[in-house]
Amino acid sequence: MPRYKLVIEYDGAPFCGWQRQPEEVTVQGVVEAAVHRFSGETVRLTCAGRTDAGVHAIHQVAHLDLAKPWRTDTVRDATNAHLRPHPVSIVSAEIVGEDFDARHRAIRRHYRYRIFNRRPPPVIVRAQVWHVPWPLDAGLMHEAGRRLLGRHDFSAFRAAECQAASPIRTLEQMDIEVRTMGLHDEIVVATSARSFLHHQVRFMVGTLMLAGCNRISADDVAEILASADRSRCGPMAPAQGLTFVGVDYEPPFGK
Amino acid sequence: MPRYKLVIEYDGAPFCGWQRQPEEVTVQGVVEAAVHRFSGETVRLTCAGRTDAGVHAIHQVAHLDLAKPWRTDTVRDATNAHLRPHPVSIVSAEIVGEDFDARHRAIRRHYRYRIFNRRPPPVIVRAQVWHVPWPLDAGLMHEAGRRLLGRHDFSAFRAAECQAASPIRTLEQMDIEVRTMGLHDEIVVATSARSFLHHQVRFMVGTLMLAGCNRISADDVAEILASADRSRCGPMAPAQGLTFVGVDYEPPFGK
Repeated sequence: MPRYKLVIEYDGAPFCGWQRQPEEVTVQGVVEAAVHRFSGETVRLTCAGRTDAGVHAIHQVAHLDLAKPWRTDTVRDATNAHLRPHPVSIVSAEIVGEDFDARHRAIRRHYRYRIFNRRPPPVIVRAQVWHVPWPLDAGLMHEAGRRLLGRHDFSAFRAAECQAASPIRTLEQMDIEVRTMGLHDEIVVATSARSFLHHQVRFMVGTLMLAGCNRISADDVAEILASADRSRCGPMAPAQGLTFVGVDYEPPFGK
Repeated sequence: MPRYKLVIEYDGAPFCGWQRQPEEVTVQGVVEAAVHRFSGETVRLTCAGRTDAGVHAIHQVAHLDLAKPWRTDTVRDATNAHLRPHPVSIVSAEIVGEDFDARHRAIRRHYRYRIFNRRPPPVIVRAQVWHVPWPLDAGLMHEAGRRLLGRHDFSAFRAAECQAASPIRTLEQMDIEVRTMGLHDEIVVATSARSFLHHQVRFMVGTLMLAGCNRISADDVAEILASADRSRCGPMAPAQGLTFVGVDYEPPFGK
């Protein structure tokens, strides 16, 4: 019973997130249905990072088991054919050992958040960014972001409905980069950790936005973190600016 | 009667092109209507490069005259407010002299064409690229593209309905660049000329695609050009991959 590792790209807009739900259109639901349509098998996908409604992925990883050993090209292309017109694409499929697990072998998840910073609204990339019309100072955001690095209780940046057993997480990367594009700036937040709390990235980005427009200081961000008080953090940045961009696995599984 | 120069960004997908038409939704039509709604004035826009149905712009330039001297920030923001929900944005507005003309003072138009090159379909950028699923060699495309540079009769790359008085054009830039993005390549065609024939860029890109998959050689491309025979050129690349990215004006008007 071969195990397949899939790399999956999706536009989160039309989906109620990754996780299968009885009455909703979800990424997991449409991929499992597409695999069933070509193979006749009822499969269950396990992914590296379950994304919320509206969040995109360019490199989600999932695994599934099939009774019959299909060629990897067939798994990829036949699933894609049956996924139409959903905006989901199987970018690659490979056979892995039974000891591979897309979720439990993952040691680092990577997210990217895009802020579109100019007064006029975005057009071409409007479905993949957060439009912040007032000026942001990416240097201030970066400085504030450094204060979140390391092992902390992230309760201040945690959704009320978060089901994690512990609020302790280790933030390994929090970099703010500016890309000047003609008449506007795009501010890209790149962050990585072994795992994140529910809505943690979006609460952190909303708080760094306040630092970027000088409403709060880097010291304030450190204090908000130390307070473990969710009522003190910034607004939750909208889902559409967030993309799951990759995952690292423990050796020998690689990326 | 002040004259305003606008920089305009739009997603071409929902529009029947730039040019106003009585029964169709066009970019010119919705911008003129938005200006009318805030100013009460009936205006006529003149743009640098009229784009076809489905073609995007990130830096279209247009001018218009208003009887009343509105502040430039007001022209930009009030027009944007009335443009919703159309995917069009006035990126900037400035006052220029009466001798500025967005069309007639332009000396160079710049276009970019994006090809998404991998077997699985694109998702996030699907509305801004041409999906070519077979492998393309950008080096071969670049070599073939060099053969189109300079002053030529471009009849082989001209739409039947083209209304230009002459098929002679001078191609000033034709560069192919590859951007490797994780598990796929994006091939970007950058091309510039004082002006282009109708559908010229899309016919050139379709022909270079054939060179990129080795169906034709660079010499063949030169021969197709020399033949001035439209039946010999490649397929017309789809509109959605094409973006108008900028325009140069004669001194002292700048970009």
